[in-house]
Amino acid sequence: MRCLYDGGLRHKCGVFGIYNHNEPARLTYLGLYALQHRGQESAGMVTSNGRRLHLAKGMGQVADVFDPMILSRLKGKSAIGHDRYSTAGESGLINCQPLLIDSYWGQIALAHNGNLVNALSLRSELVRQGSAFITTSDTEVILHLIVRSSRKSFHDALVEALLKIRGAFSLLLMTVDEMIAIRDPYGFRPLVLGKLRNSRVIASETCALDLIGAKFIREIQPGEILIINKDGLQSIFPFPEREHAQCIFELIYFARPDSVIFGESVNLYRNCLGRRLARESHVDADIVVPVPDSGVSAALGYASESKIPFDFGLIRNHYVGRTFIEPKQAIRDLGVKVKLNPVRGLIRGKKVVLVDDSIVRATTSRKIVAMIRRAGAKEVHMRISSPPIISPCFYGIDTPTKEELIASSHSVNEIRQFIRADSLNYLSLEGILSCVKNGEKRFCTACFTEKYPIDFPYERFPQLQLFEKQK
Amino acid sequence: MRCLYDGGLRHKCGVFGIYNHNEPARLTYLGLYALQHRGQESAGMVTSNGRRLHLAKGMGQVADVFDPMILSRLKGKSAIGHDRYSTAGESGLINCQPLLIDSYWGQIALAHNGNLVNALSLRSELVRQGSAFITTSDTEVILHLIVRSSRKSFHDALVEALLKIRGAFSLLLMTVDEMIAIRDPYGFRPLVLGKLRNSRVIASETCALDLIGAKFIREIQPGEILIINKDGLQSIFPFPEREHAQCIFELIYFARPDSVIFGESVNLYRNCLGRRLARESHVDADIVVPVPDSGVSAALGYASESKIPFDFGLIRNHYVGRTFIEPKQAIRDLGVKVKLNPVRGLIRGKKVVLVDDSIVRATTSRKIVAMIRRAGAKEVHMRISSPPIISPCFYGIDTPTKEELIASSHSVNEIRQFIRADSLNYLSLEGILSCVKNGEKRFCTACFTEKYPIDFPYERFPQLQLFEKQK
Amino acid sequence: MRCLYDGGLRHKCGVFGIYNHNEPARLTYLGLYALQHRGQESAGMVTSNGRRLHLAKGMGQVADVFDPMILSRLKGKSAIGHDRYSTAGESGLINCQPLLIDSYWGQIALAHNGNLVNALSLRSELVRQGSAFITTSDTEVILHLIVRSSRKSFHDALVEALLKIRGAFSLLLMTVDEMIAIRDPYGFRPLVLGKLRNSRVIASETCALDLIGAKFIREIQPGEILIINKDGLQSIFPFPEREHAQCIFELIYFARPDSVIFGESVNLYRNCLGRRLARESHVDADIVVPVPDSGVSAALGYASESKIPFDFGLIRNHYVGRTFIEPKQAIRDLGVKVKLNPVRGLIRGKKVVLVDDSIVRATTSRKIVAMIRRAGAKEVHMRISSPPIISPCFYGIDTPTKEELIASSHSVNEIRQFIRADSLNYLSLEGILSCVKNGEKRFCTACFTEKYPIDFPYERFPQLQLFEKQK
Amino acid sequence: MRCLYDGGLRHKCGVFGIYNHNEPARLTYLGLYALQHRGQESAGMVTSNGRRLHLAKGMGQVADVFDPMILSRLKGKSAIGHDRYSTAGESGLINCQPLLIDSYWGQIALAHNGNLVNALSLRSELVRQGSAFITTSDTEVILHLIVRSSRKSFHDALVEALLKIRGAFSLLLMTVDEMIAIRDPYGFRPLVLGKLRNSRVIASETCALDLIGAKFIREIQPGEILIINKDGLQSIFPFPEREHAQCIFELIYFARPDSVIFGESVNLYRNCLGRRLARESHVDADIVVPVPDSGVSAALGYASESKIPFDFGLIRNHYVGRTFIEPKQAIRDLGVKVKLNPVRGLIRGKKVVLVDDSIVRATTSRKIVAMIRRAGAKEVHMRISSPPIISPCFYGIDTPTKEELIASSHSVNEIRQFIRADSLNYLSLEGILSCVKNGEKRFCTACFTEKYPIDFPYERFPQLQLFEKQK
Repeated sequence: MRCLYDGGLRHKCGVFGIYNHNEPARLTYLGLYALQHRGQESAGMVTSNGRRLHLAKGMGQVADVFDPMILSRLKGKSAIGHDRYSTAGESGLINCQPLLIDSYWGQIALAHNGNLVNALSLRSELVRQGSAFITTSDTEVILHLIVRSSRKSFHDALVEALLKIRGAFSLLLMTVDEMIAIRDPYGFRPLVLGKLRNSRVIASETCALDLIGAKFIREIQPGEILIINKDGLQSIFPFPEREHAQCIFELIYFARPDSVIFGESVNLYRNCLGRRLARESHVDADIVVPVPDSGVSAALGYASESKIPFDFGLIRNHYVGRTFIEPKQAIRDLGVKVKLNPVRGLIRGKKVVLVDDSIVRATTSRKIVAMIRRAGAKEVHMRISSPPIISPCFYGIDTPTKEELIASSHSVNEIRQFIRADSLNYLSLEGILSCVKNGEKRFCTACFTEKYPIDFPYERFPQLQLFEKQK
Repeated sequence: MRCLYDGGLRHKCGVFGIYNHNEPARLTYLGLYALQHRGQESAGMVTSNGRRLHLAKGMGQVADVFDPMILSRLKGKSAIGHDRYSTAGESGLINCQPLLIDSYWGQIALAHNGNLVNALSLRSELVRQGSAFITTSDTEVILHLIVRSSRKSFHDALVEALLKIRGAFSLLLMTVDEMIAIRDPYGFRPLVLGKLRNSRVIASETCALDLIGAKFIREIQPGEILIINKDGLQSIFPFPEREHAQCIFELIYFARPDSVIFGESVNLYRNCLGRRLARESHVDADIVVPVPDSGVSAALGYASESKIPFDFGLIRNHYVGRTFIEPKQAIRDLGVKVKLNPVRGLIRGKKVVLVDDSIVRATTSRKIVAMIRRAGAKEVHMRISSPPIISPCFYGIDTPTKEELIASSHSVNEIRQFIRADSLNYLSLEGILSCVKNGEKRFCTACFTEKYPIDFPYERFPQLQLFEKQK
Repeated sequence: MRCLYDGGLRHKCGVFGIYNHNEPARLTYLGLYALQHRGQESAGMVTSNGRRLHLAKGMGQVADVFDPMILSRLKGKSAIGHDRYSTAGESGLINCQPLLIDSYWGQIALAHNGNLVNALSLRSELVRQGSAFITTSDTEVILHLIVRSSRKSFHDALVEALLKIRGAFSLLLMTVDEMIAIRDPYGFRPLVLGKLRNSRVIASETCALDLIGAKFIREIQPGEILIINKDGLQSIFPFPEREHAQCIFELIYFARPDSVIFGESVNLYRNCLGRRLARESHVDADIVVPVPDSGVSAALGYASESKIPFDFGLIRNHYVGRTFIEPKQAIRDLGVKVKLNPVRGLIRGKKVVLVDDSIVRATTSRKIVAMIRRAGAKEVHMRISSPPIISPCFYGIDTPTKEELIASSHSVNEIRQFIRADSLNYLSLEGILSCVKNGEKRFCTACFTEKYPIDFPYERFPQLQLFEKQK
Repeated sequence: MRCLYDGGLRHKCGVFGIYNHNEPARLTYLGLYALQHRGQESAGMVTSNGRRLHLAKGMGQVADVFDPMILSRLKGKSAIGHDRYSTAGESGLINCQPLLIDSYWGQIALAHNGNLVNALSLRSELVRQGSAFITTSDTEVILHLIVRSSRKSFHDALVEALLKIRGAFSLLLMTVDEMIAIRDPYGFRPLVLGKLRNSRVIASETCALDLIGAKFIREIQPGEILIINKDGLQSIFPFPEREHAQCIFELIYFARPDSVIFGESVNLYRNCLGRRLARESHVDADIVVPVPDSGVSAALGYASESKIPFDFGLIRNHYVGRTFIEPKQAIRDLGVKVKLNPVRGLIRGKKVVLVDDSIVRATTSRKIVAMIRRAGAKEVHMRISSPPIISPCFYGIDTPTKEELIASSHSVNEIRQFIRADSLNYLSLEGILSCVKNGEKRFCTACFTEKYPIDFPYERFPQLQLFEKQK
């Protein structure tokens, strides 16, 4: 069998929670459904009935993990849930979130979207002090910090723990009587607040609010701890102020186009990228073809700005699962063809502008360009709606190592030669920032610039990976 | 749990076969993968090793039914396979195809895309003569006719049987040493021939050829019986000549846009429909929004012709499976929202042209219009890239009864009122025929015109349904 | 993985039916549960609601195949079910019973325990006449004979078909309004009639009646066709009279010890065999040890008659499933040890009489003798409560070929040497007959005597095997 | 569905480990297979490859949890495994053992058979100190105590932790380079050491050694810590000396009859109980019938001593799984009948001595007596091969509460009336002790005497239950 996810970037997680609802499990199920694009390998949920927390999780997509019987056992009035991308293998299920522990503060469940950069040193310190770790996730570090705190109240202990961790964290925490939403002071990952009649809803993206009919209230602010309990909502801002560093790649690629995050409509932002790209690197061509689905919005913008007709010259097979069985005798580019097939009638004899959101290793791009050529294209001009990715993300995106990122060691022209395109242009850094409000000040662009908002001299490697490498 | 397929039309089947290949099971697996859109509820395959036929089938999509171990047991050099839409329930698995029997002519496997209109009377006659039926499918009728024939050769018996059946049938038949492709004299359903080095390939659509790297040779002609064996290919045309009646709905909706069937590039045809629709029913608007995925090609054509900007104002969640779990307390339009979510930023304050391929019961259209309105649209103009569906298909499409087809009893204006659109226009019959070569002469348009190419005075009902109603 | 059933004989089937009950599916489920020892590889059930028959079947034991949802779909007032031993592989599910067909006589479901000896020639003839076979089972031959009959009534057609088949058949047949129990004129396989309030029950053995609380009425007689419908019970005896040939091995080994079949209490019969065996081949020993579970009853009889103490010197692990995973580095006699473990404290230093019901290939006996010796036994005397098996069964028991039956080509002393026992004695033919009433006249002893009650000059091979060898 | 385990006692666990073997996972799989009777609801295994520990566990029996692919991922040279009885529900999988943590001492895996009586207070203390608990099991308490220790070596930390816990614990612990077997100073639960060529084996019972062909060396002694690593075996005895209190019920009921534990052959012990019972409470009868399987050995002893013939008057259906589906219309005593069926021919008109190992709630006994009567018994005399159970076990047996134990509040005569036996006799305390060497000094008989070897004034309740009640 062959895995399909071999070329791209993957998100780590999506979180969803609802407080004070008659059917929190079923609504969280729907919320996780809407956020499935943020993590498809495992899903989990914890509910509170006011006395105890109840947990269910499993490997697979939301629809595989939960059934009506499981949901009916998740009793209570509140719930938090988690979609996750997780490595397969023995510890898979153990690492599924939310994590649930029992402690001095009673039961605590925690769902995490992001990545801590000092998890390894914190873990070493905790281990020295006698903490026992069950998982290899950085999320467990946060829980241990909370329960180890000597502060007198749970909220103080929580704050103390949060002040020790560094990195990207959009957290959803639940105790028997509270739901707490937390966003790190940089605001790397999105987190939004919604309202559904008397219920409060927290989600990674607004598309989850839309599905359950909840109203979008506002984003959780960078550095905000929002405590939701029977007394209502209370916000505290305990972190020292930081320049915001929201992940620009959420807008470029990860978030669903119908979501609004970081104050931007994702679809409109991507359309703007395409328009800007057309202005920056116009080419005389006959048709603009997106690499579906990620390149669609930008391609529409490109076509609109360049006045070149847009069409779906590549058709995506949406019935494809995560793996498929290959013949032993290789079929050329089967991995790409299982997902994408060109429409010859559209492409034959044409000069094609091919639009995608990014290039990681370039092996997939190379196959797609070849596919377009074999379908009869006269010229293939690749346009990428973001700058070259030159360095890995340590804040919650599963990027390959720097060595594997083709742009870290190759010029644009070399990449063009590798993918065999007639021309290749990336959008400029100014370009991606010009499409958002106050872009320069508010976003993390480290994958394009290597300017990491958080310095980490002693731990220059993604934590999770380290833990798992020890295995 | 709630089923998602509650509003639309469904295809009955896709077929794929390969003759003379080292890995026929694995290639047929891929072929069925590519044809998954033609039937997602069960899949099956029969291979021949020259002495015996081997069968595997099961409920679910191709990726669920087959695994490497099952494929490895399907030994041989040739294979035929089948994707099927099948009613759930007790007899589900029994009715999965290919059907495999042992008989005077040895083992015969048969995969069928289409529907016979005289199956019931033939079955009654066969039953009177002592045939025992295992399934409720019309396909089994064909097998019994073959084995009952007193002709001296298998090919003669096959022809005799085929001359008795009436209706739509694109068949793929396999014996231990031959693969035979058959298309009824009307040519209702598509069937194409391809070549992969020394192997011959038959498929419902060309997209399956593309995936395995096979070259498209030609369509199996209406009325053709193509026999593929060690002596090569031999065609016979035993049927009385009929005016061709290829299903126009394959082009409008069912086939994959990257396929070429009936000599037409599906994507280009749909784009043409959209252009024609724009000319027939122009409206002054701000944005053209397709109902994804079926309305996309026509919407692109509409936008292009009308010069109104195109954008994805509705985002489809492709992670959605066939069912989902609902809360008990209803969420408005959840069934539609699980699949589709509007992009408010695109729609707010706009006059929207909403393009879809067809309206069946209109309940889904009504929900989508409401969703667009709630997202802030100023006006919603519905445009349908085909004429009103006024009568059911008896030739292999799973349509609801005439009573359920809203256009069978309501005027366009009444439908407009029901779906609460500001305007509603269907494309004319001339419109859909103008986009194909010699359209009028070659296509079945019975669902729009009630002019059925095959008269069936005594059996005016879809056969399969009848059999199953008896249950 | 390794299969555990590598040494013994296996039964082909058990049948159960109930007529006129509010919950026929759930009672048939229980009945099949009680008959699980007669077939553990697949299970199936057909119910009638008076208008249609409903079918469910699957691979595995009864508890795996059925769940409450499946049973709830099996609506009606009557049901027949089947436990089956079936070969694995592609056609497994197809061959599961009951078989259900639609025909001139409407729907007919058939469950069969036994084996036809002229199935192959009948099938050839039917195939020549144009019958299409779906399965490789001889049961389907019976159905085709029925539906091919030109008789004017269903009962006449049934009788005509039954007069053509030869061999062992205890059948349970169901139409929408009748349940019919049939036992071949030789009476090879058991079949009993019971009563539960207003319901009639048919089962292979009385233990199934006991479980559901039904009263045992009588055996279906050899040659009897018992028709159960709304008019009550009607028996017909259309077969020419035959000398009865009830399978003595049912009493010796297959039937559950708590059943009463052929007018004999199975447990008492086996105890009698043990007593007789003690008289025929007494040995001076310290302990009588049964090979559990099959040798227990006879060992008790042996101990009682010989006044040698009985004890469980071999413990059986009942948690063992059908397969287990072996280490690559072989463990001596693991296959036997997974099931059986000696109690050293009982055996050490003792002269042991080891009692089993039969020896097939002798490989398992050899391992058990070695196991007993390694546990410290001073002497091991093997006693078998039946005569040497010298020829295969063609009437429904899955015996190996004649070549594989050790006693077909080796003397008792040679077998003793092979299994390395200090002595080996089989019970005499007179012995096994002396324990039943009128034994000589009523039983088939072909496996011990090679005197087959039905001559079959032209088809000297088990039918089913032939069909499957063709694969 | 209905659960079958509704009347009896259940064990908590079995453990198995092997050090220095090429296929430790496959041998541990077999070992757990042999110990399946000690826990059938979940199974788990941890292997060490010298650098990392690998874990796999799941709900179900050993054969369901492991397959060849899972075993192949469990790489290494050593393994420990665990069979568990665990409550169903949400936390089921979390509580499966072995538990595996990462800590200051590296990875530690722990498998536990027994029950701690001071787990709750230890856990409270640990929680106060900042430990985070993932499970509700007392086993996790041990791990936290180890990792919290400030001792300088792992072995010192382990000893410090073990000196704090009180109760029953037979432990198997593994780090990357050691396997450690521990038995509490009372010796409540069995634990044995074996040898297989160069490998050392630890198991709950000797039957697991037998299966893999390992030689029994000796029991792990009460209070012994046996460290197995590359330097060989080293024993330490850090506990203050305690009067041994080995669980007499292991001998009476739990252990497999082919095992040797506490220096006793289980089968011989139970036979002795039966003989003693016959002497203590002889009754004039016709047949001795065991309640299978638990009463078999004692019944044999009873029969032998009393000279009353023994026979299997009750047949057990071994194909029965853990649940079955009942009809809505109740069948009398179905729960018992699914498992047991009387042999009428043996029982009719007889005075029956029915022998079982114990009576818990008496509801099952009542049904069995009724079943025997309905089968025609003239008299039913119940004989129990142990004294009345009057108080619950806090040391690792899952007993009901004191209120549910019928003998805690009813006299023997009252129980006799309740179960409707003609007579009822229990074996005396002296009786069960007379069958072992130095019985009085070495065994825990608290369930019969309420004399608990460990006093626990403040925590008079089973710990595990408490934790779970909080849920």
